[in-house]
Amino acid sequence: MLNFEFQLPTRMIYGKEKHKEIGQILKPLASKILLHYGSNSIKKSGVYDEIIASLEENDIKFVELGGVMPNPRLTKVYEGIELCKKENIELVLAVGGGSVIDSSKAIAMGAYYEGDIWEVFEQGKAIEKALPVVTVLTIPASGSESSRGSLIRNEEKNKKLGYINSMLRPQISIINPELFFTLPKNQVANGVSDMMSHIFERYFTNTEHTDVVDGLCEATLKAIMKNGLIVYNDNCNLDAWFELGLGGTLAHNNMLGIGRQQDWACHDIEQELSGIYDLPHGAALAAITPSWMEYVYKDNINMFVQFAVNVMGVEGGYRDPEYIIKEGISRLRDFYNKLNLPSNLTELGVKNDSNLELVANMARGVGSLKKLDEKDVLEILKMSIGN
Amino acid sequence: MLNFEFQLPTRMIYGKEKHKEIGQILKPLASKILLHYGSNSIKKSGVYDEIIASLEENDIKFVELGGVMPNPRLTKVYEGIELCKKENIELVLAVGGGSVIDSSKAIAMGAYYEGDIWEVFEQGKAIEKALPVVTVLTIPASGSESSRGSLIRNEEKNKKLGYINSMLRPQISIINPELFFTLPKNQVANGVSDMMSHIFERYFTNTEHTDVVDGLCEATLKAIMKNGLIVYNDNCNLDAWFELGLGGTLAHNNMLGIGRQQDWACHDIEQELSGIYDLPHGAALAAITPSWMEYVYKDNINMFVQFAVNVMGVEGGYRDPEYIIKEGISRLRDFYNKLNLPSNLTELGVKNDSNLELVANMARGVGSLKKLDEKDVLEILKMSIGN
Repeated sequence: MLNFEFQLPTRMIYGKEKHKEIGQILKPLASKILLHYGSNSIKKSGVYDEIIASLEENDIKFVELGGVMPNPRLTKVYEGIELCKKENIELVLAVGGGSVIDSSKAIAMGAYYEGDIWEVFEQGKAIEKALPVVTVLTIPASGSESSRGSLIRNEEKNKKLGYINSMLRPQISIINPELFFTLPKNQVANGVSDMMSHIFERYFTNTEHTDVVDGLCEATLKAIMKNGLIVYNDNCNLDAWFELGLGGTLAHNNMLGIGRQQDWACHDIEQELSGIYDLPHGAALAAITPSWMEYVYKDNINMFVQFAVNVMGVEGGYRDPEYIIKEGISRLRDFYNKLNLPSNLTELGVKNDSNLELVANMARGVGSLKKLDEKDVLEILKMSIGN
Repeated sequence: MLNFEFQLPTRMIYGKEKHKEIGQILKPLASKILLHYGSNSIKKSGVYDEIIASLEENDIKFVELGGVMPNPRLTKVYEGIELCKKENIELVLAVGGGSVIDSSKAIAMGAYYEGDIWEVFEQGKAIEKALPVVTVLTIPASGSESSRGSLIRNEEKNKKLGYINSMLRPQISIINPELFFTLPKNQVANGVSDMMSHIFERYFTNTEHTDVVDGLCEATLKAIMKNGLIVYNDNCNLDAWFELGLGGTLAHNNMLGIGRQQDWACHDIEQELSGIYDLPHGAALAAITPSWMEYVYKDNINMFVQFAVNVMGVEGGYRDPEYIIKEGISRLRDFYNKLNLPSNLTELGVKNDSNLELVANMARGVGSLKKLDEKDVLEILKMSIGN
């Protein structure tokens, strides 16, 4: 295990009906807030009205900004920052999934930043201050509800960049699994894939003596897969959504990444690819991950045998490690298939053209279990294309 | 799963040599502290000198109070409170294990409390304020380094009482596994037993749909058992101590107890017993736990089969559940034996006399998987006596 620090300061509130208490919960923190959300689905589901009612009941003034898109756009962030400055906003309330939360975080730091907030993403600049962010989660997947990160897409530059800072960690997050009931099937599948990937990126490591955290990763992965399949086929299953809501948070609050080198190759490759193609994040990860595994497993046979046996349920024992690993990867592909996730990037419209070389060049140097050079990334992309 | 809230605000710092940075770490928090510790072992090991050096280097003034005993005494708490008031102490630094940390927490709240601090324990009174507590852990077991609780023994009244309040949670805890190298074998064994029990108390539940947290409990238990045995036989194994340091914290920061009813019967019985007999906590738990399991398993056969199979490695399948459970409990006894923990309370000097009835009376109503009345507790105690 490596030295590490660890702290989970976000107050996580899990439970039915809990979003209806939002006004009460925010009252000690702010008197005027920005209410930030994505599509109109929160209006259709009634969540919007319930939140407004609770805010009004508690005399909390609010300014609204909806319309956040997947791969949240920088232009929307600019809009939010302007609103915050003009309206003297004291807190950003994100009602949505990872995109809305990431957008809220970017707005929260932009509200105090003098220059162009994109500089902070581009140059990894230090920030001094950010507005508090509180979230009501409507899509469990990104883990952004308790993480320190924000990922924003600059649509002009075709570039998606992340920024990490403790000040971006939400103060409070409310998770009511009932709000997940109306999610369309493809979003459920993408979410499950994203959660799994957040764990894979931490789990696959060359760091040794990592018994405790290995076990936590394996247990959380298995619970996510089991319950992911349940809600995919029965989207009003409260118990399974409860498990998935918790699993999604654990997958990305870095509890499962402590004391070990983390990999992040698949996420980094997907991020570069998404800058160009604007892909559904979880679906793209499902298309890339098995190819990444096939390409890198020889660098740490033990780790991949452990994955196949402890997570994918392959019988271990004295059989050929390569057989065990390939069976594990094949079962992972089968699992993705059950959620109708793409088996390759072609299904997502990615072509075997010069863009791949561009992505390979930008993503060179990613990974840690195996550090990938430009040629490695290109090879993984071609395998993921499936031609 | 039940509704829950969750937050881990303690900043946990894990790593070699980290205690030598204590002065630097405390500098932003306080200019005058109470240095609270137990026996002279921190002087023999050199930890005391290293901490003093770091405090002096960073111009932090300190007042010392050593001599905390296992089952920390109220009289020592009074002494600490008086010192804090007289010397205008701003922070309590606990250098030790659970007893020192629990004593520090009681002192920290006593420093601001007008009346007798024992009232707070006896009446579960609300407190308004407490000094910040920072810990340097020298014995991993109690989990007190990140918990909200303090357990104090009133030696005059032969009574051990606990108190839980968020304000008691340490602000920062430093865990350097090298400091555990000098622990005597029996303390290692007691610590492992205590950690395991902290998980058992949360794991065994009638709450259903608890996949994620069940898995986390099982993974942490297995890692604690594996590494506990390693350090018991090789007390300078840094890697295994690292795992155990982390396992001990996870076992009791309530991450493994979220969303479920918890039991706590064994701890509650042990606490009443220890008020009279002043027992080594972990050893007493090892003597009580298997008997508790044998007495209550029929109330939740599925849970105990799951334990036997997923934690103790008993083959599941189509075999008789009772056989599987008994084999699981028997393997747990074998494990305790490997650590030379007592197989019954007689080995700890507890007699089958009227004291048992006193304890059974005081502990009546404990438990949740099976709520235990006076007769149940007495029966478990007699089974634990081993006669």
